[in-house]
Amino acid sequence: MNEEINFEKNFVQLKELLKNNEINEFRESFLNHHLYDQSRFFLSLDPVERLEFYNLMSPKEIADIFDLFDSDDIDINPFVDEMSKEYLGEIFDSIYSDNAADLLANLEPETMKEILDSMDAEESTEVKRILHYDDETAGAIMTTEFVSIVANQTVRSAMTVLKAQAEEAETIYYVYVIDSQNRLLGVISLRALITSHDDTLISDIYNDHIIKLDVNEDQEKIAQYFRDYDLLAIPVVDTDNKLIGIVTVDDIIDVIDEEAASDYSGLAGVDTEDVSQNPWQAASKRLPWLIALLFLGMGTASLINHFDSLVSKASILAVFISLITGTAGNAGTQSLAVAVRRLAIRDEDKKNSLMTMILSELITGLITGLVTGITIFIVVSIWKHNMILGIAVGTAMFCAITVANLAGSLIPILMEKLGFDPAVASGPFISTMSDLTSVFIYFNIASLFIHYFN
Amino acid sequence: MNEEINFEKNFVQLKELLKNNEINEFRESFLNHHLYDQSRFFLSLDPVERLEFYNLMSPKEIADIFDLFDSDDIDINPFVDEMSKEYLGEIFDSIYSDNAADLLANLEPETMKEILDSMDAEESTEVKRILHYDDETAGAIMTTEFVSIVANQTVRSAMTVLKAQAEEAETIYYVYVIDSQNRLLGVISLRALITSHDDTLISDIYNDHIIKLDVNEDQEKIAQYFRDYDLLAIPVVDTDNKLIGIVTVDDIIDVIDEEAASDYSGLAGVDTEDVSQNPWQAASKRLPWLIALLFLGMGTASLINHFDSLVSKASILAVFISLITGTAGNAGTQSLAVAVRRLAIRDEDKKNSLMTMILSELITGLITGLVTGITIFIVVSIWKHNMILGIAVGTAMFCAITVANLAGSLIPILMEKLGFDPAVASGPFISTMSDLTSVFIYFNIASLFIHYFN
Repeated sequence: MNEEINFEKNFVQLKELLKNNEINEFRESFLNHHLYDQSRFFLSLDPVERLEFYNLMSPKEIADIFDLFDSDDIDINPFVDEMSKEYLGEIFDSIYSDNAADLLANLEPETMKEILDSMDAEESTEVKRILHYDDETAGAIMTTEFVSIVANQTVRSAMTVLKAQAEEAETIYYVYVIDSQNRLLGVISLRALITSHDDTLISDIYNDHIIKLDVNEDQEKIAQYFRDYDLLAIPVVDTDNKLIGIVTVDDIIDVIDEEAASDYSGLAGVDTEDVSQNPWQAASKRLPWLIALLFLGMGTASLINHFDSLVSKASILAVFISLITGTAGNAGTQSLAVAVRRLAIRDEDKKNSLMTMILSELITGLITGLVTGITIFIVVSIWKHNMILGIAVGTAMFCAITVANLAGSLIPILMEKLGFDPAVASGPFISTMSDLTSVFIYFNIASLFIHYFN
Repeated sequence: MNEEINFEKNFVQLKELLKNNEINEFRESFLNHHLYDQSRFFLSLDPVERLEFYNLMSPKEIADIFDLFDSDDIDINPFVDEMSKEYLGEIFDSIYSDNAADLLANLEPETMKEILDSMDAEESTEVKRILHYDDETAGAIMTTEFVSIVANQTVRSAMTVLKAQAEEAETIYYVYVIDSQNRLLGVISLRALITSHDDTLISDIYNDHIIKLDVNEDQEKIAQYFRDYDLLAIPVVDTDNKLIGIVTVDDIIDVIDEEAASDYSGLAGVDTEDVSQNPWQAASKRLPWLIALLFLGMGTASLINHFDSLVSKASILAVFISLITGTAGNAGTQSLAVAVRRLAIRDEDKKNSLMTMILSELITGLITGLVTGITIFIVVSIWKHNMILGIAVGTAMFCAITVANLAGSLIPILMEKLGFDPAVASGPFISTMSDLTSVFIYFNIASLFIHYFN
């Protein structure tokens, strides 16, 4: 997009205006940009430029920029340190409550408290309430800025309420219908409002078949509702069915990204999202896993050591160690990835679906093991002119793959049963585990045939 | 959500009404449900029930259900076979053009042509145009049902246009401003429209700093714009800046899911999305990869075979084969996953970022290799009371990890340079490749020290 490239060039021009303190020219040009581009400009400023910038902007305008920041990506501590607590209070008053809670949660407790104290009482209560909910639940990602109306009024009066709240609300495209106790009755879209006659009663046209979220609903499940129902926002209710917030689609896109990234990182055994780090930091993140797996791998080494006399007698056995462990590891990784995905999209109502999954993976393991085993039997028999060796290697391959397949599906299921996210079961872990069982199987089978190898 | 469970129970009741041909009761109860639930009910019907269902519903009502289907998940062929071409034509007239194109593209060419011929001329032209664009581009996922207005009119007249088009448009929350040549000038949100005075001129209030997509823009890039700018829809223009469609946020959620699933599948070396398949199908999907990697693994086996005399002399060497190949494979998988993510989010303007990536991964490999190498040196020296063996294994480990890290980042970069999706480079492939190099390094280093091992 050429817009974008032009904007990069505009940075220089904007910075010039800022430096020369050309207030009106700067503000006109700057505010004409999309908020995301404004935020990129802001992030490109050095501390001196930022102080000039704060002078030219209102707290509300800075709040709009902060609203785009995600605490996972951007550390606002340097900016917070540059501003007075009063100014910060005004900024945080204008940030949507879900984003304000996210940003505040990543500051020092002391700083967070000071900012909350400087905020408007009503706003800070809402933010505190969100801070209170568990991470990754509806309560933690919802915003409290939405439009609600009572049912016994006309479209005309509802539109008046909506216009009055339009400035504050995160979305005005869904209007929630509540009773006098703030209990959620239904929803009406702005599309329906503007296409209805002004004198129509809301009670006659609102949709009472509403999709809603419990405040403790897990964010992965919420993402599923957005996928299924193609909604722009979903209301959040407490145990009394009182409307306390809404989750909007833009927040859910971030959730979907996060979940996908964490599944991917889990499979690889490394946090792939933290890509800005330097090699030292990267190494320090990867080493714990590598060293832990190294010690697990020492188990395999001890096992081979245990069969040392076998290898001394027939050094040909060493030739197939890495082939069998490698292939079983590959099969286990495939099985693991499929199991993790199945668990994620599984219909939880179906009680016996876990058994079906395990059984299905066992059969898949048997089939792939059989085909791979026969293949390697043929290859080894021809290569080494030794069918007995072929049978030993082929049988070991068959057993090792079947076991690896089963382990690949059992381990994530086990993790879920134990209350962990099954996606953290990593490919490297499965491969290393499977090395151990494969070697065990291989040498036990080989020891049966040892007299035919030399 | 209790709604959902209740709805499952309602299935039985609804089917009863359908069976007894209680037209009004059925329609009232059915149409009161959310479209996604309607679609689930529809999918639960058997062929006989479906024929009764078609009798009670209008083509438009069936179109609303079809609009939720994604051809990747649902095969509409059985439904298409049950209906007359005229009825189908009416249904497809009412489906949003992007979804219609998606569903039609997965029918037999003959059937597709018949349906297109039965459709309204204007609608079928739009669908044909979308069918024409490359998969995974803006053109292929855009819809042509949007609201556009000219700039020289008031808010009042714009609202009249909008209300008239509200029924047809996929979203009415953004209204696009065009000139007399249909060239895109800017955008105005419905929020801005309803909070502006009726007599205000559109030309005074629309936003001309617009984010737009070229019709050939790749869908992964489009997803990035939605993430960055938090928009509900983005307009699509042709090379003359003429407005030809919009991409909406619900379509992009599907794209983000698809991309994440394909990255995940790539890393595992298996298509993890096709989870409905039976064990035979699953095995037939996984075997090609496993067998291909088995033959690559045969390279490693031949290499060990080549060093047979070394193993005969010192069977202790066999003990560390799987430890070194396994650990290097784990390091390579980590490096691969990080490289794939970095390539996906890389700023393409930065010319030398590839070089930086490779260099950074090399240094990370050196550090992790050094730490792991020293660890295994200590372990082996103590365990085997043989420092020379410790040095050999430690050095081999250090070299093997460094090479695996480098390969893990080079292979996806190479794939991208060759025009492939770097995400298809799989963990199992890297592990198997790395087995080969690790064994090569290990035995060459071991052969230098062979006289000290017994």
